[in-house]
Amino acid sequence: MKNKQYIYRFSKNIVDGNRGMADILGGKGANLAEMSSLKIPVPPGFTVSTEVCNHFLKNNSFPKNFKKNLLSYIKTIEADLGFKFGSVVSPLLFSIRSGGRQSMPGMMETVLNVGLTDKTIVGLIKQTNDERFAYDSYRRLIMMYSDVVMEKANNLNLGIREHLDSILIKIKKDKNINHDYQLEASDLKEICLIFKKEINKILKSHFPDDPYEQLWGAIKAVFISWNGFRAKEYRRIEKIPDSWGTAISVQSMVFGNMGDNSATGVAFTRNPSNGDDCLYGEWLPNAQGEDVVAGIRTPYPINAYSKNKLTENKKTLEDAFPGIYKELLSIKKVLEGHYSDMQDLEFTIQNGNLWMLQTRDGKRNGHSAIKIAVDLYNQKMIGNNEIINQVSFKQIEEVMHPCFNLREEKLSKIVATGLPAGPGCATGVAAFSPERAQELSQKGKEVVLVREETSPEDIHGMHVSSAVITSRGGMTSHAALVARGWGKCCVVGCSDIIINNNSAKINGKTITEGDWVSVNGTSGNIYLNKIELINPQLNKNNNFIDLFEILKPLQKIDVRANADTPEDATRSKNMGAKGIGLCRTEHMFFEPKRISEIRKMIVFRSDKKRRERAIMNLLPFQKKDFYEILKAMSPYPVTIRLLDPPLHEFVPLEDNQILELARETGVTEKIIKENISQLHENNPMLGHRGCRLGISYPEITKMQATSILEAAVRLTKEGTEVFPEIMIPLVGSINEFNHQKAIVEKCGSEIEAKNNLKINYKIGTMIELPRACLEAEKIAKSADFLSFGTNDLTQTTFGFSRDDVSDVLKKYINSGILEEDPFQSIDVDGVGKLIEIAVKGARKANPKIKIGICGEHGGDPKSIDFFKNCGFDYVSCSPFRVPPAILCTTK
Amino acid sequence: MKNKQYIYRFSKNIVDGNRGMADILGGKGANLAEMSSLKIPVPPGFTVSTEVCNHFLKNNSFPKNFKKNLLSYIKTIEADLGFKFGSVVSPLLFSIRSGGRQSMPGMMETVLNVGLTDKTIVGLIKQTNDERFAYDSYRRLIMMYSDVVMEKANNLNLGIREHLDSILIKIKKDKNINHDYQLEASDLKEICLIFKKEINKILKSHFPDDPYEQLWGAIKAVFISWNGFRAKEYRRIEKIPDSWGTAISVQSMVFGNMGDNSATGVAFTRNPSNGDDCLYGEWLPNAQGEDVVAGIRTPYPINAYSKNKLTENKKTLEDAFPGIYKELLSIKKVLEGHYSDMQDLEFTIQNGNLWMLQTRDGKRNGHSAIKIAVDLYNQKMIGNNEIINQVSFKQIEEVMHPCFNLREEKLSKIVATGLPAGPGCATGVAAFSPERAQELSQKGKEVVLVREETSPEDIHGMHVSSAVITSRGGMTSHAALVARGWGKCCVVGCSDIIINNNSAKINGKTITEGDWVSVNGTSGNIYLNKIELINPQLNKNNNFIDLFEILKPLQKIDVRANADTPEDATRSKNMGAKGIGLCRTEHMFFEPKRISEIRKMIVFRSDKKRRERAIMNLLPFQKKDFYEILKAMSPYPVTIRLLDPPLHEFVPLEDNQILELARETGVTEKIIKENISQLHENNPMLGHRGCRLGISYPEITKMQATSILEAAVRLTKEGTEVFPEIMIPLVGSINEFNHQKAIVEKCGSEIEAKNNLKINYKIGTMIELPRACLEAEKIAKSADFLSFGTNDLTQTTFGFSRDDVSDVLKKYINSGILEEDPFQSIDVDGVGKLIEIAVKGARKANPKIKIGICGEHGGDPKSIDFFKNCGFDYVSCSPFRVPPAILCTTK
Repeated sequence: MKNKQYIYRFSKNIVDGNRGMADILGGKGANLAEMSSLKIPVPPGFTVSTEVCNHFLKNNSFPKNFKKNLLSYIKTIEADLGFKFGSVVSPLLFSIRSGGRQSMPGMMETVLNVGLTDKTIVGLIKQTNDERFAYDSYRRLIMMYSDVVMEKANNLNLGIREHLDSILIKIKKDKNINHDYQLEASDLKEICLIFKKEINKILKSHFPDDPYEQLWGAIKAVFISWNGFRAKEYRRIEKIPDSWGTAISVQSMVFGNMGDNSATGVAFTRNPSNGDDCLYGEWLPNAQGEDVVAGIRTPYPINAYSKNKLTENKKTLEDAFPGIYKELLSIKKVLEGHYSDMQDLEFTIQNGNLWMLQTRDGKRNGHSAIKIAVDLYNQKMIGNNEIINQVSFKQIEEVMHPCFNLREEKLSKIVATGLPAGPGCATGVAAFSPERAQELSQKGKEVVLVREETSPEDIHGMHVSSAVITSRGGMTSHAALVARGWGKCCVVGCSDIIINNNSAKINGKTITEGDWVSVNGTSGNIYLNKIELINPQLNKNNNFIDLFEILKPLQKIDVRANADTPEDATRSKNMGAKGIGLCRTEHMFFEPKRISEIRKMIVFRSDKKRRERAIMNLLPFQKKDFYEILKAMSPYPVTIRLLDPPLHEFVPLEDNQILELARETGVTEKIIKENISQLHENNPMLGHRGCRLGISYPEITKMQATSILEAAVRLTKEGTEVFPEIMIPLVGSINEFNHQKAIVEKCGSEIEAKNNLKINYKIGTMIELPRACLEAEKIAKSADFLSFGTNDLTQTTFGFSRDDVSDVLKKYINSGILEEDPFQSIDVDGVGKLIEIAVKGARKANPKIKIGICGEHGGDPKSIDFFKNCGFDYVSCSPFRVPPAILCTTK
Repeated sequence: MKNKQYIYRFSKNIVDGNRGMADILGGKGANLAEMSSLKIPVPPGFTVSTEVCNHFLKNNSFPKNFKKNLLSYIKTIEADLGFKFGSVVSPLLFSIRSGGRQSMPGMMETVLNVGLTDKTIVGLIKQTNDERFAYDSYRRLIMMYSDVVMEKANNLNLGIREHLDSILIKIKKDKNINHDYQLEASDLKEICLIFKKEINKILKSHFPDDPYEQLWGAIKAVFISWNGFRAKEYRRIEKIPDSWGTAISVQSMVFGNMGDNSATGVAFTRNPSNGDDCLYGEWLPNAQGEDVVAGIRTPYPINAYSKNKLTENKKTLEDAFPGIYKELLSIKKVLEGHYSDMQDLEFTIQNGNLWMLQTRDGKRNGHSAIKIAVDLYNQKMIGNNEIINQVSFKQIEEVMHPCFNLREEKLSKIVATGLPAGPGCATGVAAFSPERAQELSQKGKEVVLVREETSPEDIHGMHVSSAVITSRGGMTSHAALVARGWGKCCVVGCSDIIINNNSAKINGKTITEGDWVSVNGTSGNIYLNKIELINPQLNKNNNFIDLFEILKPLQKIDVRANADTPEDATRSKNMGAKGIGLCRTEHMFFEPKRISEIRKMIVFRSDKKRRERAIMNLLPFQKKDFYEILKAMSPYPVTIRLLDPPLHEFVPLEDNQILELARETGVTEKIIKENISQLHENNPMLGHRGCRLGISYPEITKMQATSILEAAVRLTKEGTEVFPEIMIPLVGSINEFNHQKAIVEKCGSEIEAKNNLKINYKIGTMIELPRACLEAEKIAKSADFLSFGTNDLTQTTFGFSRDDVSDVLKKYINSGILEEDPFQSIDVDGVGKLIEIAVKGARKANPKIKIGICGEHGGDPKSIDFFKNCGFDYVSCSPFRVPPAILCTTK
């Protein structure tokens, strides 16, 4: 450990790190180093590695020699700049910023202006000749430091920040002024004194007058903030390991609040909402960075392109600082060329000089991600290997989000309009706090969270909501950033909404919790009624089509869809599905005419003849079902699963239904009720279902196989190429499979003989029991294909009934017993092992066997990766997951 | 196939087979060959191998050259004996007998006297000078042949046998005689004529007058009888593969019905009921073998030792044929010495000459098997390697069958006494047909089957009954043989019972279906009341004790018991258990005081403090439980499973219980009911149970661990050596295990510190989920032991809810989809594979880990064999299976 490098410098002359070192320098630190190497103006400093964080959090102390080294690095910065940390003549100040391997916006702490004391402020005033600026900076440091270092890092909860805020408000009121910037130097000086006294009183501790004490305190506090509640919660949602830790960038301060020739701003090198290749951002003159992000002052547009309704009359940076704006444009070019991606920039102008404080790959929504990816590809800035990583699964999923039924939306009244921060549409009931949002969501409601503004404390409520509306803040406010990251519908800065605890007034109308709200995150419009959501028309989205034209040839395995209707089949095919991986047939039985036959079959189940007659009455219906779906999916295969659920799912429950059935069958109601109660099972999940049904009642299998194969014959005769794949469910042994296979084959050869036609059909099985995995080698000798039903396989492998253990699962995930919900992402260590055993055995016995997966995991990126590496031929998922799944299969 | 030997000769001069060839010659054929080699007098013949049977049943034809070879073999017998098959002067007759690899008594067909025709009978009469005998033989052939060959083998169901029987009865009535032997030669000659006419009329086919046609017909019919209903049913119960097929012995006829100097008999070389080393058997003068077995004439005792109440006045073979009796004694010595086992003999005396027709290892009951084994061992006829195969699992199980409470039995009135054919005692309700026995048994009743006599058609009813009583037949009758083979309580020949359809009169009392009957199969006494059954006192059975003294040092792995009470613990220890493999704790919670605390805990489950208080109130009770069981099992380990079932198993169901609980808790009934209904689960088997409970409510784990460890401390201080093993149930991942382990270890170190004492305890887990098997390598790093819960593991691996799929399982086993019930015998291909994966992983990670099994499979011979080969340290089973399990572990 002794020779380990814990600190990495970045300056014009010496750069220790680079952008590939985000794991130890954090994204911010790595990019500060990279920009310094590119000779972009960056205030010099150094980054303390994540290893120090982990060491500190584990041992509550710094590594050996760390402090000594850090002090010597400060010396080099002092030499570089000609300022001196702690000097009363030319003091050097530092910003102390957190920076994780993956961005966690606003989740950890930052302390600015570190090094200002009653003594050094004298030098700062002399240097800048601006007493007001100096005391404003000091006031900010005192507020931040007392909150972050003295209170939070000590795990206190005494509300110092709120207390100081209220004092500030009272002083402004006493002085009859509205804004901080109206405070004069003498006011601020007095405020600093009052603050320090109040800190003494409340925290029973002095605000430190020693720059070094400030420095160490700030560093420790930032490390400690890695384990703060918000940060942990964010990591849980974003699945960021706790073990990563944060780096800290210690950087010499530059000041955007040094008067009218200073400013601060943020910009994206392309528009993160729609992908336009144009600098897009906000700025504020005479301000520090926190002012832009906090949403307290509405920021100005960086250029004409960035203007919106709220800012159309504000001055642009392009107009105010034309030279700096040009400099920014050339930095855009350098950084985009270098990073091959759209960048998110932070900058400060100090006395007319531009300083870059951060660059990182810019967060963007799905639509813009797709446009940017296609643009970068066409601009030859990226190739095949890059484009597959340029857009995420979630982003593609996001653009497939529903939008409103246009007619309904037109008929609805726009009650307010805000900034369109997260595209897509959503409709739900209003909630006014994250807690209530969570509670309503747990009751199964779609929720729209309505807030004045959001803060990191709100993220759990935002996460469960379908949409977020805020009455304040801009496109880079907390709400906007978070919602965009999640692809969530969001409207911000909707100032027509006045929020008052648990209700809101919107242009005169009052809404309370539970009232319907509809949100168009693409236009920014808000409605107070429920509007129908419809699926996006991806076939009219050129970027989307272009992207998939590039991606499809790169696919390593096929993607199919789980679809039960011809509509879903057509939709999936249009979205790139190469077949249907799971066509469930049970839904087809619920139409009144059909369910009545099924119920008759149940009543007559011990009378073979009458049972058969009832089942065979379903044949024409089923034949039509399969005709349509096979036709819709032609020329791709359709895997049809034979009847799977236990019979009790079909029984009538209401008295009038039973009466009806009694009339139809001539059996008394009493006997029908007895008959139904005999079907009761203690554990239906492990009961009389799947192929067990087909074995008990072979005529079900016969009827379904006949329907499928006769439909195929008709289509073949009509000249339509079809590939039905008949799937036997819930097989646990080769004998079960062969039993059912024999029935299907008998139907097949009879129909083939009758029509003098060869049908191109396959017979396979669903592997959804542990025993099926262990028997797969045997089964594969007899089966044409295997399709893993990972939902049931997960249930039986874990012994988890999905309906019953949701609380257990939640507890397990929260307490780290399980890393992830195994029903969302395949459990590689358990279920995955069984799958590997099965695939290995099956391929050995029958190298040509087709292997797929049709559980919900077929639409999960990590799981798709696992299946791909396992040697699957395809994954099958819900139609709307087909495009993102296609992306995953290219990697 | 061309050079395959299909026929194996046995005669004084040429013997092709030996006793090791039972797989192709059947037991009978192999032993006929063996006896011939030993120069024991055996009528010459040859055996047709099982391969011919399989060929015939598959192709409906004999293998190439088979018929030609068979005819040439007949020539050698003719040469040997000087008789000629089909000769009208000195005709040779054959018996055609089935003989499987494993004995299936009475389940297949036999045809005797083959070769008798209207022409050859002339030679037989001349030769024997006994026209009556010749026509009696002919009459028997006609009856047997028409039934077995002409009707059954052609799959007809025209009742020819019953028809001919009724004719015979009518003729006897007309002639005013009672017994067949009173019929004269002329009567029999006429009967043969009538029979042939009736056969013509009913079967539309002639009785064949060609000896060769008879021969081929009989051979085919015997093969076909392998697939008869009775034979298939027997194989299903006895788990004999259908693929084995039967051999056929074609043997020259000798006649026990050739007058007073002829006889036939059966004998055991030792008493099969009690093991006495004494020839034991029955005989009949002037009779053919079928007469003895059929139970039509009550046979005579072979010697004084074989006499019983019914036969004490009958003449013994020893008196009637002293020379032959001596010859039998010397044959007993030769065969026992040769086979190292008690033999079951069939013999015929023809004109004063002894002929042996069969020898085989004699069936015996458990008591005699144990005595014989110990005797043979002491007589140095067998050693360690043999004794372990001398007694079967079932036989040991059988002697552990309950017997009656002696006082109750003494107070009960003996209503009848029969022959004690199957020892042990049973009590149940009367059934008078196998069908009703089966139906009553399916309703959960213990059944006593009461029959005039039993036949192979009755075996399904016998199988489900606790005891069988017959009013006719001897110790070697069908009922006696079958019951003994199954270790079932049985009394035969109880002539005081007069059966009349669905009721019986016993010494004046009438019993009808459902009336209580108690049967003492050891004394032969019958009672008409319910008598308490008590467990056998094995510690007073010297043979039993001696056997286990020999077996215990030969054990390859340990046997433990599943026991929840100190009584069961003591009993198991006395029977040789080396610890408790599964002590369930849930039963301990059902005492009124305890259940009330559990229920409080459930009501307060979201209020941590009150929940904890309720649970901790159980500590003194549990401590006492564990104190007692650990003490009883000292110095062996006791594996205690922490609470496993879902909480809803403890909730009150009745209104007054809910009222009581409301009073105790101060919570309203309505809320309690809501609270209870929240516990409902769709699939409780896969729900909130096992360690999931301990993780949700850690205080349960804490309370139980504390109870166990404090009990251990108390015992240690008292000087009792104890080894508690704490078992965490239903673990699926290492994290679950570690979570619970940490709680137990914390209790452990606190109690150890408080008492300044090291407790010798282990922490392990139950492996009962597929995922646990796959994660066993990880779990083993942290666990001291693994115990496989194969019941639940079978449920989850197959996706079978044991409660729900019993009908499915029955269907699967009957139709051959499953070979065996996987809940009885471990499913080697599926569940077994998971176990192998787990054991391999666990041993790799932790070579010292203790591995056991505590599911029901721990008491199943095949399964024990599997676990032993898998490298388990022990199996654990119910206390009464401990001794038979010990036997299995020696092999």
